[in-house]
Amino acid sequence: MASPFTDFDLMRNLRQDGSKIVLLVMDGLGGLPATPGGRTELETARTPNLDGLAESGSLGLSIPVRPGVEPGSGPAHLSLFGYDPVRYMIGRGVLEALGIGFPLQAGDVAARGNFASVDGDGLITDRRAGRIGTEECIRLTGKLREASAGLFDDCEVFVEPVQEHRFVFVLRGEGLGGSLTDTDPQAVGRKPLPVRDESGRSEGARTAELVNRWAAHAREALADEPRANSLNLRGLAQDPGLPLFPDIFGMRAAAIAVYPMYRGVASLVGMEAIPFEGDRPRHEIDALVEAWEDFDFFFVHVKKTDSYGEDGDFDAKVREIETVDAEIPRILELGPGALIVTGDHSTPAVLRSHSWHPVPTLLWSPDAMPEAARGFGERACAGGQLGICHATTLVPQAMAHAGRLKRFGA
Amino acid sequence: MASPFTDFDLMRNLRQDGSKIVLLVMDGLGGLPATPGGRTELETARTPNLDGLAESGSLGLSIPVRPGVEPGSGPAHLSLFGYDPVRYMIGRGVLEALGIGFPLQAGDVAARGNFASVDGDGLITDRRAGRIGTEECIRLTGKLREASAGLFDDCEVFVEPVQEHRFVFVLRGEGLGGSLTDTDPQAVGRKPLPVRDESGRSEGARTAELVNRWAAHAREALADEPRANSLNLRGLAQDPGLPLFPDIFGMRAAAIAVYPMYRGVASLVGMEAIPFEGDRPRHEIDALVEAWEDFDFFFVHVKKTDSYGEDGDFDAKVREIETVDAEIPRILELGPGALIVTGDHSTPAVLRSHSWHPVPTLLWSPDAMPEAARGFGERACAGGQLGICHATTLVPQAMAHAGRLKRFGA
Repeated sequence: MASPFTDFDLMRNLRQDGSKIVLLVMDGLGGLPATPGGRTELETARTPNLDGLAESGSLGLSIPVRPGVEPGSGPAHLSLFGYDPVRYMIGRGVLEALGIGFPLQAGDVAARGNFASVDGDGLITDRRAGRIGTEECIRLTGKLREASAGLFDDCEVFVEPVQEHRFVFVLRGEGLGGSLTDTDPQAVGRKPLPVRDESGRSEGARTAELVNRWAAHAREALADEPRANSLNLRGLAQDPGLPLFPDIFGMRAAAIAVYPMYRGVASLVGMEAIPFEGDRPRHEIDALVEAWEDFDFFFVHVKKTDSYGEDGDFDAKVREIETVDAEIPRILELGPGALIVTGDHSTPAVLRSHSWHPVPTLLWSPDAMPEAARGFGERACAGGQLGICHATTLVPQAMAHAGRLKRFGA
Repeated sequence: MASPFTDFDLMRNLRQDGSKIVLLVMDGLGGLPATPGGRTELETARTPNLDGLAESGSLGLSIPVRPGVEPGSGPAHLSLFGYDPVRYMIGRGVLEALGIGFPLQAGDVAARGNFASVDGDGLITDRRAGRIGTEECIRLTGKLREASAGLFDDCEVFVEPVQEHRFVFVLRGEGLGGSLTDTDPQAVGRKPLPVRDESGRSEGARTAELVNRWAAHAREALADEPRANSLNLRGLAQDPGLPLFPDIFGMRAAAIAVYPMYRGVASLVGMEAIPFEGDRPRHEIDALVEAWEDFDFFFVHVKKTDSYGEDGDFDAKVREIETVDAEIPRILELGPGALIVTGDHSTPAVLRSHSWHPVPTLLWSPDAMPEAARGFGERACAGGQLGICHATTLVPQAMAHAGRLKRFGA
């Protein structure tokens, strides 16, 4: 159905202890056929384990934001965690800062920074500075840190490397804020834009002015660099102070993700990011097994399905799905009360981008209504027992199957 | 996503006269397979008449409260009547009082009473006093009525039998209210609890004190009873004053139900409870035929499907569904414009309890979109023309099929 979004007060009233829940997210899982009459990535993948769960569990299609709305990664994950992303917004800069474990403080203004290449006229020739390596990123952020020292007498500046061409910029001081625009013109052949405040509030104007001063100063410091001789700032934002997942749903929650931003959004709602070695799905399941006794809810995030979708690599996305399928038995051996397998959004390889298509979703539990045998795929999910539901309803539905919701009313 | 709930103002604006509607509710209809790969109760039942309606009518799954939320009987029925149960709450005591036809007045505080057995230390040994018979219940309530006479100078007390160990307690007086807790500790080996007020309002504190005084006095009066030597009060509440079904939807509505509580919730929204002889589905359809000319909307409630589900008796639930199926032709002979066959919630025999699973729903009408022949069952309903809809949308959809809704806009 068209769900109402998850009602946090209702959840606080109904929640109770129960069995453990795993939310396995294959980023950008949803796809499209590569050829007319063909199969999607998920339908193409050989997934005996997921097909088995689809037979004994329930299927559906989930809508991350609103029908037809293509979600960014932050909103898409907030929705999976039960938060209507239209109501609860997080700036990209905040996610990026939290993702690298930066100790963000209330009032800090954080931005996602990208090193870029510009020509003699200051026109952008490469928005990613030729995808410089992370080592180079570390050197350049050190350079910027030095250049920023003492720039402002009433504000502190932090510049931290992320990976490749990406870094985090944080401005700390009293009375910062506003609604700040990006410097990235999103195209080559144009100059970086000045940051503007759209809030109309005084702290906004002041913050925009400070950020612009820093950006100009930082670009001067980079001027002699061969590739990364400029930069852009995106998603300037402050911590929105979201209600916390453990307080709403009564579950100690762990986040297992390779990429920083996903640990970031998870920690923003009060999940604990679990450190682990390695970057493959099997390493993430190792971490899941390791942490099993210490938490009630586990968010496990697989990134490459989305990366390959964005690259337009249909076959590689298929293989990554198969790699995840091979790990399913290890999850089941842990004996979860409910297992959700879904994506945060669709990333069809043929589109090379996130898309608005609803996301194939599987909810397995010993008490789930079993679907007829039809495998796990977009077409199989349409018409399943979960229907076309809003992604915010998945956690409550998993809680029900895990015995974590009391009866409503007499 | 369609709008989740029914908009009462919209209904008041669009409603018009049309043909008659029957809402046939098999309580706890939804089920689960008893064995892996098996069929549910409804899928197992031989239901040639319902299967025929499923072929010429539309199917769907309805969600009573919210996805994943297991409903109590009161909220589940309010939702079927078009009321979002999260917005419109009814205390159990109110339902119980209305269910026995008690002339509840505004301001009355009503409770569901249970006779109980306690040991020498006052610890509960049986929360149902060995399920004493209704005759015994009548004798005991008479005893309590006498004992209550003149107990309060500014309040009146009513004690009415329901069935077996259950009775209704009503306190009538000026300035009663509050948010009152139950005395039932929900476990044996513990003493009944004192009623507490959680509203923090003065009338709440006073009402709690009056109820506690009565309970202590009543338990003294029962002290010499062999089995029912104590009691508990649950669901202390006042009539919430809901908007009335006939005013919202423009239909004179009749309620045909064997069990008190279902007549109670129906009369609370302005339906007229029809008295009739007998307690089987055929007797209820006799009453339907009898009352056909006098109303526009008929709520017919079959209880035993839920009772057998709660008992874990899969086969008996199957048989009761088949018994209801046999009555379908008599309903169709009356020529309704629309017939809804559904449950208020699921009660899978394998779970021996209400559950959160969406409810198989059938909407038959001469103008309904016919489904492919696939019978009436949970799996067949998924992917039907009604989709997975909130239960509050069923009455409006039936009204449309019965010609009772005007076009919206030009």
